[in-house]
Amino acid sequence: MSPQLSPVVAGTWRMHEWGWSPAERLAWIEQCVELGVTSFDHADIYGGYSVETLFGEALRLATPALRQRLQIVTKCGIRLVSPARPLHRLKSYDTSAAHLRASVEASLRALGVERIELLLIHRPDPLLDPAEVAGAIDALRREGKLAHFGVSNHTPSQASLLQRALPLAANQIEFSPLHLQPLHDGTLDQCLDLGIRPMAWSPLGGGRLLNGHDERERRVRDALERIAAEHGVSIATAAYAWILRHPSRPLPITGTRRIDAIREALAATSLRLDRESWFDVWQASAGHEVA
Amino acid sequence: MSPQLSPVVAGTWRMHEWGWSPAERLAWIEQCVELGVTSFDHADIYGGYSVETLFGEALRLATPALRQRLQIVTKCGIRLVSPARPLHRLKSYDTSAAHLRASVEASLRALGVERIELLLIHRPDPLLDPAEVAGAIDALRREGKLAHFGVSNHTPSQASLLQRALPLAANQIEFSPLHLQPLHDGTLDQCLDLGIRPMAWSPLGGGRLLNGHDERERRVRDALERIAAEHGVSIATAAYAWILRHPSRPLPITGTRRIDAIREALAATSLRLDRESWFDVWQASAGHEVA
Amino acid sequence: MSPQLSPVVAGTWRMHEWGWSPAERLAWIEQCVELGVTSFDHADIYGGYSVETLFGEALRLATPALRQRLQIVTKCGIRLVSPARPLHRLKSYDTSAAHLRASVEASLRALGVERIELLLIHRPDPLLDPAEVAGAIDALRREGKLAHFGVSNHTPSQASLLQRALPLAANQIEFSPLHLQPLHDGTLDQCLDLGIRPMAWSPLGGGRLLNGHDERERRVRDALERIAAEHGVSIATAAYAWILRHPSRPLPITGTRRIDAIREALAATSLRLDRESWFDVWQASAGHEVA
Repeated sequence: MSPQLSPVVAGTWRMHEWGWSPAERLAWIEQCVELGVTSFDHADIYGGYSVETLFGEALRLATPALRQRLQIVTKCGIRLVSPARPLHRLKSYDTSAAHLRASVEASLRALGVERIELLLIHRPDPLLDPAEVAGAIDALRREGKLAHFGVSNHTPSQASLLQRALPLAANQIEFSPLHLQPLHDGTLDQCLDLGIRPMAWSPLGGGRLLNGHDERERRVRDALERIAAEHGVSIATAAYAWILRHPSRPLPITGTRRIDAIREALAATSLRLDRESWFDVWQASAGHEVA
Repeated sequence: MSPQLSPVVAGTWRMHEWGWSPAERLAWIEQCVELGVTSFDHADIYGGYSVETLFGEALRLATPALRQRLQIVTKCGIRLVSPARPLHRLKSYDTSAAHLRASVEASLRALGVERIELLLIHRPDPLLDPAEVAGAIDALRREGKLAHFGVSNHTPSQASLLQRALPLAANQIEFSPLHLQPLHDGTLDQCLDLGIRPMAWSPLGGGRLLNGHDERERRVRDALERIAAEHGVSIATAAYAWILRHPSRPLPITGTRRIDAIREALAATSLRLDRESWFDVWQASAGHEVA
Repeated sequence: MSPQLSPVVAGTWRMHEWGWSPAERLAWIEQCVELGVTSFDHADIYGGYSVETLFGEALRLATPALRQRLQIVTKCGIRLVSPARPLHRLKSYDTSAAHLRASVEASLRALGVERIELLLIHRPDPLLDPAEVAGAIDALRREGKLAHFGVSNHTPSQASLLQRALPLAANQIEFSPLHLQPLHDGTLDQCLDLGIRPMAWSPLGGGRLLNGHDERERRVRDALERIAAEHGVSIATAAYAWILRHPSRPLPITGTRRIDAIREALAATSLRLDRESWFDVWQASAGHEVA
């Protein structure tokens, strides 16, 4: 019943900035898949509603065999002010049945695929009606347009409201050595408790883990460097290993076009940190030892 | 099994300040009922333990037909320092079985009615014993003194503790375009999840929505004004429509003696805001767009 | 199925500072037991991993009859940097099955007892795997090394995660007239809701309740003094009675070697505060009256 995702998920949210041709995009997808990264993370709004189309252009050039090996994760529920949506007056949320259906069908068309493996509500919508969402998702599933359903950036109370109406397969959240909050606010407790798979966005803190210059970023990088040296891996691999160590089995989402950087993420799947190393990074990030 | 309340509830907490005769109070009640506002919100402590008596004096002049159309909501659990309660040394809470019974029976006497439609615990009592409260409420119900039971100003964890012992029909909370907290702290999530009906006090922010002069109040009023102009209604009606838009179906509680103002609240029940208008008000109140 | 603990639990965490011989320690244990304080609160780490051994030295001198009357509470899950654990590099948590087993077996050896009545996870471990903990605890129970299991210093979401895998008998938390937080953050709500017994550490605020000089400490002491005078008890007894008044039936943990001070705690078990006195102390601590 769980979505079949690869242990590392390739994020596409910056694909519109890469300046690539469809063939170059396809080559990137092929390289990811060869490494074992078969799941790609999207959202309708990425690139101002453009990334799904860019990805779809590449997929149309792919062999059926390659296309069958991919899993698409995408999100909906945010209405962005954008030239691509001239009717939107302000940034808002929409989890109405009509919007969910329209958004999923637009994503399928843009991507040129028949089915979304995992659909996520992008942000908690204060007007969300669980019964309405459950009805819309069930219908899309019966039509074969959707396999699994989850949320993103949801707190425990927001997720548990939906979970009652509709079992959640995932909660995509910010989680990294620079963002400890989900460890302590109940988010990861709930994932473990209810069998919701966490997906971690910004696993390297948007790059600050590697390049940041403030005191905290330096401390965390130093702690990761000790682990990296000990195991003969990169700092990025150590950071991914830190995320993967959580018993809820988070799925990290890369944000890069560099295949080498995706290899560094994958390398972490065969590295299990000992507890003292994990707490060393935690302490560097928290700025104090545990209580 | 739910209490049968009118879609707008008339609050009485300032009735002692109106300076009206019993006949004038009765005329007000009759006008409310004619409009369709048949539910009246009380608390034992309103007006320093005087409002229930003022209301009861008026009711005693009413026809049996009118009296049968009313639903009384009242609250208990606060012990106020007041000339009317000379034994009270300090403001405190009391949810003991003895206090609940004594308070309900005093309310019935003061109001001159045989049954309370909905009794609420006024504030979360840190010494509340769920089993004791459940026992007291069950007994009062069996005696026909009480139809339904709920809470007021309770956080999710406080409400869920009671909910386990005794299903809650309502949680009366502060909720308005100037008080967004219940949207984000789990309170309205819980209402939806458990079928607890929210009742909204201070729906106009104690009047600040109409008359307030700080930046935030002006911004929210401007956003409501656009909605009001678009639909040809008053700003107050737009504010009530904003509250009613939540899927938990909140019941707003007016605080005014002005029948015209009660009409403005009722007008909102036939106005369903579109999502962008709703988020426009949210954004004006939060001071930033959604994430 | 609940642990059979005495209504006051004697804390041992400062025993290494008392400078006593084994015979003196045994005399202290005997005096506690004679008073009815038969439960003793430990942790593997108290005194830098020394207190369980000090207690065990005394117990080895005790008669079998005395030993059979005792209940041992102890904790595990913290790895302290200490000369007694030269391999520990930094303070960290460990709730792995291997660590739980090693810790329990070390505690049994140090204490010289065959069974722990109640084992607590000392602090919430962000890497805790509920299934792994449940497996480890079940095995230790089947071997007769452990009767009951609980937690310490856990928030509601952390406790409920474990509770799903393994019913919790206790949550040992800081709770006193100077530490109101568990009344309002859901901790004591959860204890009542799930039948988890709270145990209160620092019931006298680490002595500040009796000796502290800041404004808040003085206010609380004044409020307790009024209660003490009214009932002819000490201020400490009034403080313990305040804790015991909560419907979750907290078990206070003393921290003293003074038998008279333990007597003051026990005296509170026959003193039930009225609600106004309880709220008087609450108000003195909060600095404002209830809402």
